[in-house]
Amino acid sequence: MTALVREFGATVRALREALSWSQEQLAEYAGLNRSYVGEIERGSAIASIVTADKLARALNVPVGTLLCAPLTVDAPA
Amino acid sequence: MTALVREFGATVRALREALSWSQEQLAEYAGLNRSYVGEIERGSAIASIVTADKLARALNVPVGTLLCAPLTVDAPA
Repeated sequence: MTALVREFGATVRALREALSWSQEQLAEYAGLNRSYVGEIERGSAIASIVTADKLARALNVPVGTLLCAPLTVDAPA
Repeated sequence: MTALVREFGATVRALREALSWSQEQLAEYAGLNRSYVGEIERGSAIASIVTADKLARALNVPVGTLLCAPLTVDAPA
């Protein structure tokens, strides 16, 4: 598992948790399978650019945000 | 083929051509198969985030650049 894949998953998880969403909710909003979202977050599945785009749209962030440096996410105030 | 996949391919091609590289050269620098680079540029293959990262590193651009709005690339002066 590359650092990129691990960081991508960690970023998706951090953004999801900052929104207080479950994996089920993120999967539904992104039009993905719930277990696949779990695999992506754990870094055990490598997302395609289409999946990355779906996740970014659901999380309302530019897709580049999911692929760049590890993200420190402040929980909403 | 989604617009994202088509635009990703077009952006990779535009950046490669702006560097006057052949597909062989880009494939070599990115550690990818030449025919796969061709499929990606034509939008007939969907890159993973790992492939997108390899291409971005080879082209020396942030990976987000390959995934965001269609890119108009000025040939080097």
